[in-house]
Amino acid sequence: MKVAKFGGSSVASAEQLKKVACIIQDDPARRVIVVSAPGKRNSEDVKVTDLLINLGNAYQVGKDYQYELERVLHRYQIIIAGLQLSSELVNTISQDLVQVLEKDYDIETKLEAIKASGEDSLAKILSTYLISLGIDARYLNPQDAGIILSDQPGSAQILPESFEKIYKLRKSNQIFVIPGFFGYTPEGKLVTFSRGGSDITGSIVAAGLKAELYENFTDVDSVYCVNPQIVDQPKEITSLTYKEMRELAYGGFSVFHAEALIPAFKAKIPVCIKNTNNPNALGTIIVSEKEVRGNPVVGIASDKGFMSLYVSKYLMNREVGFGRRLLNILEDEGISYEHTPSGIDDLSVVLREKQMTPEKESFVIERINNELHPDLVYIERGLALIMIVGEEMHSHIGTAAKATQAFADAKVNIEMINQGSSEVSVMFGIKEEGVERAVRSLYNAFFR
Amino acid sequence: MKVAKFGGSSVASAEQLKKVACIIQDDPARRVIVVSAPGKRNSEDVKVTDLLINLGNAYQVGKDYQYELERVLHRYQIIIAGLQLSSELVNTISQDLVQVLEKDYDIETKLEAIKASGEDSLAKILSTYLISLGIDARYLNPQDAGIILSDQPGSAQILPESFEKIYKLRKSNQIFVIPGFFGYTPEGKLVTFSRGGSDITGSIVAAGLKAELYENFTDVDSVYCVNPQIVDQPKEITSLTYKEMRELAYGGFSVFHAEALIPAFKAKIPVCIKNTNNPNALGTIIVSEKEVRGNPVVGIASDKGFMSLYVSKYLMNREVGFGRRLLNILEDEGISYEHTPSGIDDLSVVLREKQMTPEKESFVIERINNELHPDLVYIERGLALIMIVGEEMHSHIGTAAKATQAFADAKVNIEMINQGSSEVSVMFGIKEEGVERAVRSLYNAFFR
Repeated sequence: MKVAKFGGSSVASAEQLKKVACIIQDDPARRVIVVSAPGKRNSEDVKVTDLLINLGNAYQVGKDYQYELERVLHRYQIIIAGLQLSSELVNTISQDLVQVLEKDYDIETKLEAIKASGEDSLAKILSTYLISLGIDARYLNPQDAGIILSDQPGSAQILPESFEKIYKLRKSNQIFVIPGFFGYTPEGKLVTFSRGGSDITGSIVAAGLKAELYENFTDVDSVYCVNPQIVDQPKEITSLTYKEMRELAYGGFSVFHAEALIPAFKAKIPVCIKNTNNPNALGTIIVSEKEVRGNPVVGIASDKGFMSLYVSKYLMNREVGFGRRLLNILEDEGISYEHTPSGIDDLSVVLREKQMTPEKESFVIERINNELHPDLVYIERGLALIMIVGEEMHSHIGTAAKATQAFADAKVNIEMINQGSSEVSVMFGIKEEGVERAVRSLYNAFFR
Repeated sequence: MKVAKFGGSSVASAEQLKKVACIIQDDPARRVIVVSAPGKRNSEDVKVTDLLINLGNAYQVGKDYQYELERVLHRYQIIIAGLQLSSELVNTISQDLVQVLEKDYDIETKLEAIKASGEDSLAKILSTYLISLGIDARYLNPQDAGIILSDQPGSAQILPESFEKIYKLRKSNQIFVIPGFFGYTPEGKLVTFSRGGSDITGSIVAAGLKAELYENFTDVDSVYCVNPQIVDQPKEITSLTYKEMRELAYGGFSVFHAEALIPAFKAKIPVCIKNTNNPNALGTIIVSEKEVRGNPVVGIASDKGFMSLYVSKYLMNREVGFGRRLLNILEDEGISYEHTPSGIDDLSVVLREKQMTPEKESFVIERINNELHPDLVYIERGLALIMIVGEEMHSHIGTAAKATQAFADAKVNIEMINQGSSEVSVMFGIKEEGVERAVRSLYNAFFR
C-alpha cells in the first residue's frame, strides 16, 4: 500500500489532474491520495490558498468579499469544466464555502476553515473525477480519516492516537482522497498545520497506514545534488537518507520542509519524490539506512545570510561553563545558533544574520563583556555556509582533502570548518562573495 | 630591564650555576633573577622538591626524618663546595630548614614552607656565589619583593596590589635573586603556587617591573614546531604569539604551563625561551602581535586520550537550548569539554577521556536520554587531537587543503574537524592509532 501526495502544481488545472488520475490508475498500490490546494499554473498565477487568505482578510475587516469569493470559485469552475464534471459540483463547493463564511464560528476558526477549504474542495473534485473514470474512489474528510490534532491553529501537531485510527483505513478497498493541510482537535475544531502542511498530512497518513512507500509528487524529476541556479543541469540524486535530506534541506534545498518528514521518518517509511509531469522518471528516494553508492558526497548545499559571533579569552578552556554561559545569553535573547566551532581559547557562534538586530547585537555584546570578561568579542556578518553531505564520508579517506582543495582552486578562503563525528556533513563558513565560485568548484571535484 | 628565570635543570649543580652566573654577567639588563629548586642532574636523579616532599611526609607521620633531611642538605653541600663557597652557608641553610621543622606552624603551612625551602635555599646560594664573583647581588625574599598572594596553599593566586610593590624594585641598581614558587598572604603566611610555579613567579615579576623581556632559561635551545618524539630533529620555532603558544601548549607541548604566562601576557611582556647550556642559541620568543613569517603554520601539536560524546536528534537544530542543556548536564557532573563540532541534527562533545569514569558515563547518558530524548547517543573513546597552529592561516588560502591532503596521504581518516573564525588553529580528531603517521605527514607538508 502506497500513499501518494500531490502538491499544488500537480493539481493546479484540469490538465494536471488528468495526469494525477493516470498516475493513480497506473499502480493499484496507490490507495490513499493526499492533495494540496491548486497552485500556480504559471509564474504569474496566484495560488488558491493565497486567494482564500485574501478572502479571509476581506471577511475579517468587514469588507464586501464577493470579488474574492468569485476569484476562488472561478478556479474551481475552470477545473471542473475541464474535467467534464457536472456543474452541480461547483454549486456544492460554493455552498460549502459560503456556509463556512456564514457559520457561527469564532473568527480564528473561521479563518482556518477558509484557508483549509482549498485542499478540501480539490479533494472533492478529484474524488468525483476518479469516480467518473469508473474508479472506486471516495473523498475522506480528515476527521473521518482519523487526523486528530492539538489545538494550535496554524501550527497544529499530530496527537498520537491518530495513527491507530488511520491504520483502520487499511480495511477498505476503496481509494481514499484526503485533503491535506488540516485536521481536527479531539473536540472537533478545525485546525491547520503550518503552511505547506499537505506534506505533513501525507507523512502522517503514510506512517499511520504503515505504508510501503510515501510518494510525494511535485514538478521536478528529482532532487539535484546542488542548487541548479548555481550549477547548470546538475546531476540528480537517486537515493539519499533522511539524515542527508535533512542536512541538504537545511542548506537551501527547498523540496520539503523538514518537519513534514518526521512521522514518516519515525515509522521508517521510505519517501519518494516524483514528478507528476514525468512519472516515469525514477525520482529521488529517501530511506532510513544508507546504501553503498561509491561517491561519498551525495549533495552540496549552500546558503547565505549567516554571521559569526567571535569571543576569545586567554585560558577560556579552563573556565568550566564558559561556553554554556555564552549560549545562555543568546538563549535569553531568543537567538538560536547553528554551530559553535572553537579553538582552545576562542569560540565562534554561527547564527542566521536576520536574528541579530542592531539592538540585540549591542545588548548581547554588552552582556558578554559584563558577564564573561573576554579579551575580545566581535561580529562578522555576510557569511555563507556550504555543506557537503553524505553518510558515506565516514569511511572515505580523503574527502576533506578533496573538498578543501576545491576551495583553494576557487581561491576562496575557508573561515570556519565544522565536522562532527557523525560525518554526515562537513560545514564550511566563507565570505558570501565566494559562494558560487566555491560551490561550482566543489561540484566539479565530486560530480564531474 | 630583563627578568631571567632559571629552571630546575639550570640550577641542578655547581657546574650549571657557573653557567647561570656567566649568563647573568653577560647582559647588564638581567637585573632580576628568579630560580627554581635544584632539579635532576641526570635521568636517575631526584629533584630537591621531591626530596623535600619526602621530608615533609616523614615529619607529618611522626617518623624520624633525619635521613630525608640529610639527603636534602647533601645536595646543597655538593653545590656549595663546587662553587667554593664557605661551608658556613651550609650551616645557615641547615639552620633555616631545621627552624621551619621546629617552628610552631600549623601543619599545612609547615609543609608549604618545607616545599618552598628548595627555591629559597638555592636563591641564597646563587646570590652568595654572585657576590663571591664581585657582583652586587642580593637575595630577596618574595615578601620583600612584594609577591602578595591569596590564601590558597598549593594554588595561590597573585593579588593585584603586588604589581605596584614589585615595580619599586626598579629603584635599586643591585641584581636581585628571588626564589620562585612561593609568596606570602597579606597576613604574612607562606603559600605556594601550583607545581612548576617558578615560571609564575618570573612572569609576575616581569609584569610588575614592566620588564622589556622575560627570559625563561631551560635545557632546550627552543620550542620545536612538532613533538621531537614523533619527528626526528624537527625545525625550531624562532617566534610565536601568546595565542599560538597557548594552542600548542594545549596540544601536548610542555615547555610551559599556560597559567604561568598570564601575568606576562596581560602586561604584554615578550617571553624568550632560552637554553642555559647554549645561551648563544636564539631561542624562541613569544610576543603579543604576530609578525609575517611566510609559513602560515607555526607548529603542529598532538595529544591522545580524548573521547567524543555523540548525540543526534532529528530536528535538534530547531530546539532552542538543546546544546546548552547538554552542556549543562556535563557541567553538573563537573566535566569540562574541549570542542563541540556539530552537524544540523547532531552534536559531538570532545573531552578528555580520563574525566569520564564508567559511573559518570552511564549517569550522563541516562540523563541525556531522560532529559533530551535524542534519537541516538554514543561514546567513542581512543581519539587523538591534532592541531595545526598559526595566526597567519587566516590570510592563506589553501592551508586546510594542504593539511587535509596530508591526512589522506597518511591514510588517516579525519573523524572531526573544527576551525573557528579566529583561524589560529585547526583541530582534527582522529583515531589514536593514526596520530604518529598523520603528524609526520603534516610535518612533511608544512615544514619540509
